[in-house]
Amino acid sequence: MSITKGVHETCVRVRYAETDAMGLAYNAHYLTWFEVGRTELLREIGLTYREMEENGYLLPLREAGITYIRPAHYDDVLTIRSSIGAKPGVRVRIVYEILQNNDLLATGFTEHVFTDPYLLPVRPTRELKAMIEKCWRDKRCEGDMRHD
Amino acid sequence: MSITKGVHETCVRVRYAETDAMGLAYNAHYLTWFEVGRTELLREIGLTYREMEENGYLLPLREAGITYIRPAHYDDVLTIRSSIGAKPGVRVRIVYEILQNNDLLATGFTEHVFTDPYLLPVRPTRELKAMIEKCWRDKRCEGDMRHD
Amino acid sequence: MSITKGVHETCVRVRYAETDAMGLAYNAHYLTWFEVGRTELLREIGLTYREMEENGYLLPLREAGITYIRPAHYDDVLTIRSSIGAKPGVRVRIVYEILQNNDLLATGFTEHVFTDPYLLPVRPTRELKAMIEKCWRDKRCEGDMRHD
Amino acid sequence: MSITKGVHETCVRVRYAETDAMGLAYNAHYLTWFEVGRTELLREIGLTYREMEENGYLLPLREAGITYIRPAHYDDVLTIRSSIGAKPGVRVRIVYEILQNNDLLATGFTEHVFTDPYLLPVRPTRELKAMIEKCWRDKRCEGDMRHD
Repeated sequence: MSITKGVHETCVRVRYAETDAMGLAYNAHYLTWFEVGRTELLREIGLTYREMEENGYLLPLREAGITYIRPAHYDDVLTIRSSIGAKPGVRVRIVYEILQNNDLLATGFTEHVFTDPYLLPVRPTRELKAMIEKCWRDKRCEGDMRHD
Repeated sequence: MSITKGVHETCVRVRYAETDAMGLAYNAHYLTWFEVGRTELLREIGLTYREMEENGYLLPLREAGITYIRPAHYDDVLTIRSSIGAKPGVRVRIVYEILQNNDLLATGFTEHVFTDPYLLPVRPTRELKAMIEKCWRDKRCEGDMRHD
Repeated sequence: MSITKGVHETCVRVRYAETDAMGLAYNAHYLTWFEVGRTELLREIGLTYREMEENGYLLPLREAGITYIRPAHYDDVLTIRSSIGAKPGVRVRIVYEILQNNDLLATGFTEHVFTDPYLLPVRPTRELKAMIEKCWRDKRCEGDMRHD
Repeated sequence: MSITKGVHETCVRVRYAETDAMGLAYNAHYLTWFEVGRTELLREIGLTYREMEENGYLLPLREAGITYIRPAHYDDVLTIRSSIGAKPGVRVRIVYEILQNNDLLATGFTEHVFTDPYLLPVRPTRELKAMIEKCWRDKRCEGDMRHD
């Protein structure tokens, strides 16, 4: 588990529980793996989702999308690359890549809003916002340099 | 969905999401199907688990067991037979049978205690207790007659 | 469960297993509910997915998307409305709406390709294709009339 | 991840997907965690379950049991201790403990039989049997010494 220029990497191993009768990982579990990646990305930038909830902030999904490129199989070790996908505003967009070795198996995104425990949208604290924005800027800078 | 002499029957169809790479239903989902059976058993005797929770009672598991007899496959329609398995006391024991047509695929049980929202054991109200006991007596009577 | 003008409706009840610590249905299970809707849509137009697999055709996902509008809670009865979302070609697109009573909780889509058991893309038989196209035409006609 | 005297330890972090509306880990996921522990135990003693399947051996469950002692919460890091629970014969019994820090959260077992891909019971190869027996003896010896 590491973070480089705003892109965080973590690993999961495909469980038998996550396979289906096609012998592949079932399509819904990609969203769970995205959750694992997102949790570790937030932890890395100093935000424990568990503490956020204890402080009264929830981050429910508003939208999600997945593109399935190659299948994942039982016992495969997958790398989940997570990063902030757009300038954080009212919504926070996180983007994901799932790789096995150097093969890209899937890409996707989730879009979230900050809410209170009654699911009403709220503004994140200045501190929360700054942390997410820093992560976004780190990645953009890197991206910019990469294209020079 | 019906209840006869304290034994409640409900149906589920095996989802692709519930299969695994063996082409069978994955072992953990039987506990989820037991939950479906238990929820409908309680509803039938007049207890909505959702309302119970809203009234501050939880019914977490203390123990569970499953015997797998024959496999279940994708798209199979399963019958879940649920009933109160022992005289209700501090613990409530529910027993289950999972059948496909007339084949018994699995048997099992779950054992629960009533707790408050902080998971501390509490006594159920007299009314709650009476409802569960009635269900248990109905079944026992039937059982007694059956063995005459 | 019924189909009207190419739009199929089926129901699921939210399981406790499908909730999360927010007290809501967890985001990934919407894809499983889409699967339930899709299976019943295909069954209604004469295609049992199980038989399709036995005949050597798989229909894996290439893409999926979900928009979460309002949360679903434990024990809610949800209606899943499924229909063919675009003129079937190499890909088959299915679109979904999830409702509770008259509230729209979520919308989404899945996009599939026909493959052989080794996941290589194949042409569906003429019969398979005709069945899916009929379902698509039924809906489009209805749509056209609706907008007159 | 390590093995000492036939007892293997591995870790999982509780996913949000694995919690339920009680705010705890849902009861069925313990069986999935047992699977993770079992897979790593087998890998440690030289048996990759994936290879076993590729060689035509399945190891489906015949029985499972779980005792829930204390609840697990979102983001908890759990240790799964797995070992061979009885002298391996026709059945292989694996026992599990789930701990958080030094608290025992749950215990359980799964019982398996070797089958062919059609789920007919078969004898494991001499090599397979020897590997499992060695693991069992390692633990028993340790157990014996511990009670001296």
